Amino acid sequence: MRFFGHKKTVSVQTIRRLPQYLRLLQEWRGYGRELASSTDLADATHLPAIVVKKDLQAVGAPSKRRSGFKITGTIEAIENFLGWDNLKKAFLIGVGHLGGALLGFEGLKTHGLEMVAAFDTHPERVGTQIHGVPVYHTAQLKSMIESKGLKIAVLTVPKEAAQGLTDTLVDSGIKAIWNFAPVKLRVPEGVVVQQEDIGAGLAELCSKLH
Amino acid sequence: MRFFGHKKTVSVQTIRRLPQYLRLLQEWRGYGRELASSTDLADATHLPAIVVKKDLQAVGAPSKRRSGFKITGTIEAIENFLGWDNLKKAFLIGVGHLGGALLGFEGLKTHGLEMVAAFDTHPERVGTQIHGVPVYHTAQLKSMIESKGLKIAVLTVPKEAAQGLTDTLVDSGIKAIWNFAPVKLRVPEGVVVQQEDIGAGLAELCSKLH
Repeated sequence: MRFFGHKKTVSVQTIRRLPQYLRLLQEWRGYGRELASSTDLADATHLPAIVVKKDLQAVGAPSKRRSGFKITGTIEAIENFLGWDNLKKAFLIGVGHLGGALLGFEGLKTHGLEMVAAFDTHPERVGTQIHGVPVYHTAQLKSMIESKGLKIAVLTVPKEAAQGLTDTLVDSGIKAIWNFAPVKLRVPEGVVVQQEDIGAGLAELCSKLH
Repeated sequence: MRFFGHKKTVSVQTIRRLPQYLRLLQEWRGYGRELASSTDLADATHLPAIVVKKDLQAVGAPSKRRSGFKITGTIEAIENFLGWDNLKKAFLIGVGHLGGALLGFEGLKTHGLEMVAAFDTHPERVGTQIHGVPVYHTAQLKSMIESKGLKIAVLTVPKEAAQGLTDTLVDSGIKAIWNFAPVKLRVPEGVVVQQEDIGAGLAELCSKLH
């Protein structure tokens, strides 16, 4: 399984901006456009043009002298950089409000992730399908990860359950956890965790309210 | 309406870390603890102790020499800094998957936000209650913002609808928009936008998968 193809070190800030460029370029390609300048992207993202230019150069986006970046080539460069050119299968654990919302989020596929199964302990949820994704009992998690050879899990469980489930995930061979539970997970070296914190965005908003 | 009480400039990174400290300190206070060292918080958050210490000092957390920070005083300092000591009322626009999940998210109140009404155009949703929050038709948005004097709106609509609704929100007196639509909003000076991008976290996760 190949996750991504870059070698250079690229900053987290650049990486977090890439999906914005990707969505815009895909939209523009849909209109039949072939070239986009860093100024075009800067206008649409409210970022300085020099930031856009450096970001795109960092992932090896192809440009045409004085005409800007080639849209199709730039889309490919970003997708290749992030490993989003190969759809990766993932399991989601915890089908509460947020888990259900993520299963219904169309955007995940454009971001390289396909949810193939979900897990929960709730008798009302187990055995159903949510947005077309089958829900299994958490007791089946280990055997299903092992048989499918999955590497990525999305964790949307209450914080009390998060570490115990993480231990099971790691034991079963999961290498990447996208964690929405408000708790820091302990994982061994070689396993990556991306922590999402809804409170962080809200804190930023409140601090801007001068 | 007072949003927050700090004067110093504090970095965005610090601000985004504050909710983590707040949740831990509230939990520890619940166990009857009175003091916490920066090392305690560093262990629980996987951050360097010096970072924790500087963050807490930046918001004026009270400490006791050689014994660490006073938990209750530090909670108050963070809540005061973020303006989370006063519950702020907000409207949510767009009751799809994500909007519904946010309405059901218990954590919002501990983060200082109370959802008092939601808006949608879907006939099946208008007139219902979702997680106890009444859903009105979007046509009523302007008059209800004006009559309630609200300042904060949460935008969870499809991207095509986001700018048009933003114009209505701004016209009606909204000063802060927490935007989950994947599009940059144009707002006049004096209105703040906090942009959330689910793709950004996923991009970061994928880039960590070496």
